[in-house]
Amino acid sequence: MSELHPSLARDTMVLGQTPLSRVRWMNDRRFPWLMLIPKHADAVEWHHLPTAEQHQLLDEMAVLARALECAASPDKINVGALGNRVPQLHLHVIGRHEHDPCWPGPVWGQGEVEPYNPGEEPPWLHALCAALPNDFLEPDHD
Amino acid sequence: MSELHPSLARDTMVLGQTPLSRVRWMNDRRFPWLMLIPKHADAVEWHHLPTAEQHQLLDEMAVLARALECAASPDKINVGALGNRVPQLHLHVIGRHEHDPCWPGPVWGQGEVEPYNPGEEPPWLHALCAALPNDFLEPDHD
Repeated sequence: MSELHPSLARDTMVLGQTPLSRVRWMNDRRFPWLMLIPKHADAVEWHHLPTAEQHQLLDEMAVLARALECAASPDKINVGALGNRVPQLHLHVIGRHEHDPCWPGPVWGQGEVEPYNPGEEPPWLHALCAALPNDFLEPDHD
Repeated sequence: MSELHPSLARDTMVLGQTPLSRVRWMNDRRFPWLMLIPKHADAVEWHHLPTAEQHQLLDEMAVLARALECAASPDKINVGALGNRVPQLHLHVIGRHEHDPCWPGPVWGQGEVEPYNPGEEPPWLHALCAALPNDFLEPDHD
């Protein structure tokens, strides 16, 4: 497994892992925001992954997006692979609400992050986990 | 085929079509920027498409991203499906350069669009078309 980029380690919290990816949530109470980070060493661009892994990452996005829809009732899901600041490949899956502070603009790099308190979890996290398929996540002790 | 959303019709120019998608380029000289718009009526979220079409859209993104790499030598590809302003499903494939006016932030809704002159085409467009597989695009007379 490749090392997690220090920015991702700092800004996100562990949810679990799949055979392909680390699954983490963004420590920002403004948005229900998940991230998939393929464990593949050196992956930077989505389309540079082997095709089967490109599809697998998309399937994982779809699973998370459906669970976010159940757990956080977003008005829109935003999916993005940018990587301008952090080269390690990571796919954002973000629930957007028409009342959120960045609507209708993008969230990346906009405004001030509002982290949760230490030990606090997002209010939607329990419902998200309940909405995920039973076998989707394994623990990630990394 | 579903109607093209008026904002997409105004802001983008036709490149061609695939069996699944309209393929268009953003009329903004700041970035080499392509867009895939599934012709499926009423599609809003990527993960709401039938699974085979989700994969097909991803495969089309990968083809465009590889061609953009050849044609515009970007430092990074940004892939995004947002849809906060325009609900019709559309997937952005954007070549980013470390010297572009929005780097390292996202491009959506940032700064002023710089349209090409009437009849002018992006300097990378010919090389992009040459880099696409021969059978990827059909004409779109829509």
